[in-house]
Amino acid sequence: MVNWNAKFAARTGRMRRSSIREILKLTQRPDVISFAGGLPAPELFPIEQIRAAADRVLTERGAGALQYSTSEGIPELRSYLAARMSRPGLTVSPDNILIVQGGQQAIDLVGRILFDEGDRAIVESPTYLGMLVAWRAYNLNYLVVPTDQHGLITELLPPALRQNPKLMYLVPNFQNPQGVTLSGARRAHLAQLAAEHGSVILEDNPYGDLRYSGEDLPSLYAVDAQVRGLSELNGGVIYTSSFSKILAPGLRMAWIAAPVPVIDKLVQAKQGADLQCNTFSQYIAYEVCKDGFIDAHILRLRDAYRQRRDVMLAALEREFPEEARWSKPDGGLFLMVHVPQHINATELLKEAIERKVAYVPGDDFHVEGGQNTFRLNYSNASPEMIEEGIRRLGALLKEVIVRQPA
Amino acid sequence: MVNWNAKFAARTGRMRRSSIREILKLTQRPDVISFAGGLPAPELFPIEQIRAAADRVLTERGAGALQYSTSEGIPELRSYLAARMSRPGLTVSPDNILIVQGGQQAIDLVGRILFDEGDRAIVESPTYLGMLVAWRAYNLNYLVVPTDQHGLITELLPPALRQNPKLMYLVPNFQNPQGVTLSGARRAHLAQLAAEHGSVILEDNPYGDLRYSGEDLPSLYAVDAQVRGLSELNGGVIYTSSFSKILAPGLRMAWIAAPVPVIDKLVQAKQGADLQCNTFSQYIAYEVCKDGFIDAHILRLRDAYRQRRDVMLAALEREFPEEARWSKPDGGLFLMVHVPQHINATELLKEAIERKVAYVPGDDFHVEGGQNTFRLNYSNASPEMIEEGIRRLGALLKEVIVRQPA
Repeated sequence: MVNWNAKFAARTGRMRRSSIREILKLTQRPDVISFAGGLPAPELFPIEQIRAAADRVLTERGAGALQYSTSEGIPELRSYLAARMSRPGLTVSPDNILIVQGGQQAIDLVGRILFDEGDRAIVESPTYLGMLVAWRAYNLNYLVVPTDQHGLITELLPPALRQNPKLMYLVPNFQNPQGVTLSGARRAHLAQLAAEHGSVILEDNPYGDLRYSGEDLPSLYAVDAQVRGLSELNGGVIYTSSFSKILAPGLRMAWIAAPVPVIDKLVQAKQGADLQCNTFSQYIAYEVCKDGFIDAHILRLRDAYRQRRDVMLAALEREFPEEARWSKPDGGLFLMVHVPQHINATELLKEAIERKVAYVPGDDFHVEGGQNTFRLNYSNASPEMIEEGIRRLGALLKEVIVRQPA
Repeated sequence: MVNWNAKFAARTGRMRRSSIREILKLTQRPDVISFAGGLPAPELFPIEQIRAAADRVLTERGAGALQYSTSEGIPELRSYLAARMSRPGLTVSPDNILIVQGGQQAIDLVGRILFDEGDRAIVESPTYLGMLVAWRAYNLNYLVVPTDQHGLITELLPPALRQNPKLMYLVPNFQNPQGVTLSGARRAHLAQLAAEHGSVILEDNPYGDLRYSGEDLPSLYAVDAQVRGLSELNGGVIYTSSFSKILAPGLRMAWIAAPVPVIDKLVQAKQGADLQCNTFSQYIAYEVCKDGFIDAHILRLRDAYRQRRDVMLAALEREFPEEARWSKPDGGLFLMVHVPQHINATELLKEAIERKVAYVPGDDFHVEGGQNTFRLNYSNASPEMIEEGIRRLGALLKEVIVRQPA
């Protein structure tokens, strides 16, 4: 027999299957109410618009929609996204845009061009699990900065910035897993600190369009340009966003916006990774966007998800034990629950699944700790299912707290 | 200003834009007859079948075709491919299959799970450019084994095998760039040597279905199983093939077939890289395949490409100087031309493009050397354009040989 284990690269020892993906499999049983995934509501997918777009693309572009295309992405979609990201006084050019295979590939490609093994990176605590999975290969030294209800506590950044990190990774809007949003004042402070220390930021913004309350805040790429006095996207921010949460994740369409020298390196990494994105799906995404459908659709998504968030927050208030606390997001798909220190959310998950309800344990979102936290998604289940699921989970938590007093 | 150059990882110093991709851009001008790309003939894309498949998928599967799915790929397509790859006495299971984003991602993911920096790998000379691009990050030591008209000269393998390479990389059918096919006797010899030395093979087979003359030869995964006495795909071969050349490259659909422990590692790498392939395109590919359309379509492709190959071979005979030699492929999309040693194909390309004809210089396909070779593609241009393009190129070569006698 072939001894494959002797062949695998050293870095594979640090790889493991993503818990979320594995849990998704367990919770696909229809009787389980799953708050575990990050799945958008399938009943809100614009199936008929996608069908019409696919048809129109094949009629109007023919074989061109099915042929090889450029690694950067189709020009039409790059131009559309550049215009969408431009702001008064700040021009984003199509040359600043690279189309990628979902937000996960954005994170992966940025890692490929920036990290040498053992590099330092600043991350929020908690932070996005998919980033930790993608960058495991580089054996990074994470400089972990705490968060509160206003996001990353920028006052605590300077000691970490002085350690010469390659990058700061942030999800400033409705962060996954907490749903917390970085305040306007902290955005300005963060950009100021980054400029002072010659530091760069990866701004991961898959949820920014999904705001249900409060006011929109400027993206870090715009704040950074303002601080540096730039009128082009040529500062210290690599930005990424995605069509997964506002159109459909199965199309795997996302993009990176960055200074041209960074895009140039990313294109080289993209060529080695998979040559280019799906030509057909790029044209479909462009068709759905170009006449404004996506903007109307985003308003519908906001209304539906706002209701689900409100239903979940009300149910938590009603059903959860007083020992639990949770975040109150202004948008996005997630909130995070803290239970008393002695309760291990990973161990509790087995019991939760027996009671037909699921979540993601928080430790996967932490470089260290987080065992007494878990993430709840409120976009995928109906309001009725949310109420029932939170009831099941609340009953379990109350039992556990009686069973194992602190 | 931000000094991005100081941020980039050391490995990016070895990265550069793929010449083929850059040349593709130059040769998109309609007056240039390009033999440079590896583009299939767009007029043969089954646009109506893809349109009908997209429509049917959205009707029958609805939102499920647009939602997140598993990293391994949709079960229907994995099962179809497993059955397609099974042979009498050799069962390939759906668990042996991972769906990937084009053949390039197959090569990239295999690199991620196998290579530590500086590892050794056995490659053919010449070899596939896209592999060299994907694996540049690992700074590999290539053990280069020559080829002749029957493919890799397996008699020359043992000294390389004794140096403990991580992998042998081969394109056994209609190799890119030469169009050469590994003979049946050498397949058996290769598998025997691999088993004796505990070596493993990456069998890259994007062109195997496109045979225009001669008889089909068994795949290396099947020969390997026979040599090792295995009835399951559990030997020393990682196999990859693609829908790009038999359906449409813009869908970015390919697959890897490998022993389950290898698939397990590859799935972890896939999760970090981009989570999963496009759900919609996977269902489209499955729809187009499941009722046998793809097999009928392959027969049509063979007829059309056979004609183009024959036209190119006849034109080469007629138009090229007697100092040139070229390979005579039994299938695939490419052949390779050797010109006298003192002619540099990269330098000559500028003159060729001025005369409205293009090719890919051969040095990109070589770890070392190959400056007096170039690759011609015969799948993308019509027979008339092939004749005209070869006429232009032949005239140029004759002039250069007169201008710069050896």
